[in-house]
Amino acid sequence: MASPITCKAAVAWGPAKPLTIETVIVEPPKKGEVRIKILFTSVCHTDQYTLSGSDPEAKFPCILGHEGSGIVESVGEGVTSVAIGDPVVPLYVPQCYECKFCKHPKTNLCAKIRETQGQGLMPDGTTRFSCNGKPVFHYMGTSTFSEYTVVPEISVSKVDKDAPLDRVCLLGCGLSTGYGAALNTADVQTGETVAIFGLGAVGLAVAAGCKERGASRIIGVDTNNSKEGKAKEFGVTEFVNPSDSDESIQSRLVKMTDGGLDHTFECIGNVKVMRAALEACHKGWGQSVIIGVAGAGQEISTRPFQLVTGRVWKGCAFGGWKSRDSLPKLVAAYKSDKLCIDKFITHRRDGIETLNEVFDLLLSGNSLRCIIKY
Amino acid sequence: MASPITCKAAVAWGPAKPLTIETVIVEPPKKGEVRIKILFTSVCHTDQYTLSGSDPEAKFPCILGHEGSGIVESVGEGVTSVAIGDPVVPLYVPQCYECKFCKHPKTNLCAKIRETQGQGLMPDGTTRFSCNGKPVFHYMGTSTFSEYTVVPEISVSKVDKDAPLDRVCLLGCGLSTGYGAALNTADVQTGETVAIFGLGAVGLAVAAGCKERGASRIIGVDTNNSKEGKAKEFGVTEFVNPSDSDESIQSRLVKMTDGGLDHTFECIGNVKVMRAALEACHKGWGQSVIIGVAGAGQEISTRPFQLVTGRVWKGCAFGGWKSRDSLPKLVAAYKSDKLCIDKFITHRRDGIETLNEVFDLLLSGNSLRCIIKY
Repeated sequence: MASPITCKAAVAWGPAKPLTIETVIVEPPKKGEVRIKILFTSVCHTDQYTLSGSDPEAKFPCILGHEGSGIVESVGEGVTSVAIGDPVVPLYVPQCYECKFCKHPKTNLCAKIRETQGQGLMPDGTTRFSCNGKPVFHYMGTSTFSEYTVVPEISVSKVDKDAPLDRVCLLGCGLSTGYGAALNTADVQTGETVAIFGLGAVGLAVAAGCKERGASRIIGVDTNNSKEGKAKEFGVTEFVNPSDSDESIQSRLVKMTDGGLDHTFECIGNVKVMRAALEACHKGWGQSVIIGVAGAGQEISTRPFQLVTGRVWKGCAFGGWKSRDSLPKLVAAYKSDKLCIDKFITHRRDGIETLNEVFDLLLSGNSLRCIIKY
Repeated sequence: MASPITCKAAVAWGPAKPLTIETVIVEPPKKGEVRIKILFTSVCHTDQYTLSGSDPEAKFPCILGHEGSGIVESVGEGVTSVAIGDPVVPLYVPQCYECKFCKHPKTNLCAKIRETQGQGLMPDGTTRFSCNGKPVFHYMGTSTFSEYTVVPEISVSKVDKDAPLDRVCLLGCGLSTGYGAALNTADVQTGETVAIFGLGAVGLAVAAGCKERGASRIIGVDTNNSKEGKAKEFGVTEFVNPSDSDESIQSRLVKMTDGGLDHTFECIGNVKVMRAALEACHKGWGQSVIIGVAGAGQEISTRPFQLVTGRVWKGCAFGGWKSRDSLPKLVAAYKSDKLCIDKFITHRRDGIETLNEVFDLLLSGNSLRCIIKY
């Protein structure tokens, strides 16, 4: 029987406050749960979004983090899919294999623990974290900003023994999201044209997927010119800065492509850009995929004529991957060089104490992903 | 060489004015054009929309009408696909087989004559109609509210000799649109659930398509309770009146269906209903198809979360049918009782003089389709 573990974690005490490194107690995993010793984590814009206070559903105090990797330290009753010592990646999209979403071929949005996960709780409605005797909430079912975390068994994927944990942690969110949006949601075909709005890690993962599929043109769109060089390493063939012209970006793209793109991807979370991405699609068949997360209460809009004349507006979460089934496939894509995780790692830091610095690095726009080794 | 024909036509002189029956001159067909003796026509809401003045792109004076049938009276130089005496249906969506839209498998929106058609002109930039020496514009490339009309060869489909022209005229718009939206655009599968917003002819044609595909539930939504009886004849299994409750219709439908519909169809042209139709879709896989034509300048909106969580927003024109290829298939669907055109015909009138009365009938909501025999 496992005992509580005392370890370090970066606690978010409230909106817009820096994380503080605290000593926390991590309870043993209950039935159907797994306790993981986190070895590596990265920071994603969604962590930043929640910490900034923009997410009205955020629960504080909490332990953020959802791009991590580690080793199973202990398992609760009934856990069969992983064992102590297994290398794993925690997943914010679970896969229970039982709910109607898991049974449906077209979606990855397992609903089994949606409610409690959204409340920062484990499926039994309680938390495994405490700090100075006060309960601390979980976040996205993963909470990788702690040296140890507890997650439901359905939220953890075992990876190959030889998978480099200091890299595959990035499969926990951004890279899988972008890569899957191209492969699963848009299903880009050889010779098709695409435009990607926002050239952060998600956008570049979209580019990697489009390149793998043999897209003929991959147009990168970003207001930051310094993104162009890196983007081209990922397969972007042309770079456009919307700020370079008074003409709308959709109108420029439609002209550049003789009528519009076969596929566009919004990787920012800006509702105006979402509209531009849709309207940059080719009449008759162009599809636009929303990946970015918009601010609370914001809405997308367009003229219905855009859809009546054949454009399709869709979106995805976690790239449409059925999470536990897909992680091994994503690791294989890495090993076969289709999804080159290494190119996304622009920085590395040692120690959980570096987390605030890594948030700043992400916000500066000069980092794709920084891996923190605990 | 054909000569000009003098005949009767219902001319729309300006927005919101009743049609007046005039003697018009119909020039012979030029190269690549066909002159048709119209035998039957119906009136569709799009004719009414244009006549009302709501369509900012309408050109007056014009001859409306786009659900007609007739016999080829004469053909211009180079016409090979139809000959004098052939029974035909004029098509507002042409099919040239040459443009990039015709060559693309995913769209039916032939672009060959889009510009001139939108301007009320034949492809050479002129009109074949005049009244009292004044040119009169074409409408939707069809202008069936004239005893004779001229259309481009690419805008006419030959039908079987034994196709009843007093019925298949309805394949020119509404019926094909709704039926195709279910079969082509949504591609409804056996056992799926659907909701149809607006139970006019288009909505009921959607129901016919969904029934043919074996949809398990076909929920009809209309603010007019008198539509329920007729709707059930077309396969609608449940009827909901949004006005019966203060609760939003999307919320009611989501509850009725344990999470939402597999497919929804908007057949009204109301942007608020378009939003409701999208939001009534099931998370993860629900698809909403916009069929109705919204007022000029109106916009659809929703929270992007609706799409990020797996709903798809799309639309179609003329049911996605590649027009000339499909008309014979639609006639076959009629003959095999899959698309029962007869049930849509609630009224019949004789003589072009009855057109204003038939507009009123359509607006009253008590008629699905009235066939006018010239």
